[in-house]
Amino acid sequence: MAVIGKRDILIEWGHCDPAGIVFNPRFFEWFDFCTAGLFALVGLPKPQMLKRYGIVGIPLVETRARFISPSKFGDTVTIESRIAGFKRSSFEVEHRLINGGALAVEGNETRVWVGRDPQDPARIKSEPIPQEVIALFVAD
Amino acid sequence: MAVIGKRDILIEWGHCDPAGIVFNPRFFEWFDFCTAGLFALVGLPKPQMLKRYGIVGIPLVETRARFISPSKFGDTVTIESRIAGFKRSSFEVEHRLINGGALAVEGNETRVWVGRDPQDPARIKSEPIPQEVIALFVAD
Amino acid sequence: MAVIGKRDILIEWGHCDPAGIVFNPRFFEWFDFCTAGLFALVGLPKPQMLKRYGIVGIPLVETRARFISPSKFGDTVTIESRIAGFKRSSFEVEHRLINGGALAVEGNETRVWVGRDPQDPARIKSEPIPQEVIALFVAD
Amino acid sequence: MAVIGKRDILIEWGHCDPAGIVFNPRFFEWFDFCTAGLFALVGLPKPQMLKRYGIVGIPLVETRARFISPSKFGDTVTIESRIAGFKRSSFEVEHRLINGGALAVEGNETRVWVGRDPQDPARIKSEPIPQEVIALFVAD
Repeated sequence: MAVIGKRDILIEWGHCDPAGIVFNPRFFEWFDFCTAGLFALVGLPKPQMLKRYGIVGIPLVETRARFISPSKFGDTVTIESRIAGFKRSSFEVEHRLINGGALAVEGNETRVWVGRDPQDPARIKSEPIPQEVIALFVAD
Repeated sequence: MAVIGKRDILIEWGHCDPAGIVFNPRFFEWFDFCTAGLFALVGLPKPQMLKRYGIVGIPLVETRARFISPSKFGDTVTIESRIAGFKRSSFEVEHRLINGGALAVEGNETRVWVGRDPQDPARIKSEPIPQEVIALFVAD
Repeated sequence: MAVIGKRDILIEWGHCDPAGIVFNPRFFEWFDFCTAGLFALVGLPKPQMLKRYGIVGIPLVETRARFISPSKFGDTVTIESRIAGFKRSSFEVEHRLINGGALAVEGNETRVWVGRDPQDPARIKSEPIPQEVIALFVAD
Repeated sequence: MAVIGKRDILIEWGHCDPAGIVFNPRFFEWFDFCTAGLFALVGLPKPQMLKRYGIVGIPLVETRARFISPSKFGDTVTIESRIAGFKRSSFEVEHRLINGGALAVEGNETRVWVGRDPQDPARIKSEPIPQEVIALFVAD
């Protein structure tokens, strides 16, 4: 997949714990924002994407992260994100957080394209990802 | 109003900033949870309350907090909450966070009872608070 | 005070509650970041400021916010921040969150300049704000 | 390891996203709290543990989570946590979040016991976990 998103983040006081380093749930929050940013980058900002395709969201089914070095209060880090692959109703996202030129956190997400279950609208249900969405990420 | 809610909170590592004290937005999060807890206390857990009365929520229109002493990692604090008064479509909530026997934070919220605007369902609109809801908080 | 900070924020999925609008503690988080941004703007990024002046932080002693209209998932908002005044050891910050050209949230903070208490390093204690810091915000 | 921690959590409005389900970083926050709770359970509340052993923290080096079913606003969930094993300076924690009697989220953490680097106090450095700490978790 040729599309790569980049987001710079200044590590704020409130992102950090008493050790002065980023409290880990923040990384997952940022990864979530970065995944949305990937769709925005190809012309599908998430609010419009949900409306256009009548889906509820793209929730995580699995995630993994490796924390290589701490990110400290005052650092500016960059998250590089890309979709590593699409399956029928799920897709893989890779995030690399770079701090001071070095890889500091590496994250992987498996997300699923979900709508309301027609049998029971209180439940969510995976749906096939439209080919036109996948096509937006595939380089010519 | 005779109903008083109490919630004990252990100050966790991830609640605190590099100074080792609670990062202030957490207090507003807890106040929000405590307000929901007040309705639960009188038999109206928020999910059921929204469904029964067809409202979207009870968002803040104004809030104020005074921070008297810091709450530190490892402290156990207690938040005491009460509704100070109801108006037609809004109500006032008072929160007192007690730490080590002393008042540490004092918060006030003005919240409004809102539904979907029938003219434009994308918008929210204040509605009169049902008398039966108000009655739940008034002591006999 | 002549210095005005501006920060654009895209309202992300994870900033919003089930009503699809920003969960209120986020505004306080952003105000905190914006206050730090004001010091960065005059050449005192917070990490350096803490080191140079040997302080622990600039915690809130009081805050107030008025929520005029909801900010929704997908909106881009702008927060304009300025210091409204300095006292001996405290200062006032004003934040205005603009959404779609209109004022959506208005916030005020009173913050205090604190160091470690020399009598008891486990405690924090207000200190006079250095004149050279105040001078950075005063227009010639 | 015989020690199992349990924590009940009521899913609050502010824990949820516009789909009405828990925004995923919250799970990592709760896992972090639950890991601290395990040490508290054996008599080592984290604040005291850090002081007694002169460490800076027990940060994550790797984590993984699998999201099996969504947790919704108003649900009460239980997180069961245990240490799966200790190595020289790291340990594995397993978390199982149960919702309505079924496993809803499964998380694994690898954490490391870190102090200040004596060569450079601005940096953190792994240290061997004291045998007396490990002993607290091993059943007789």
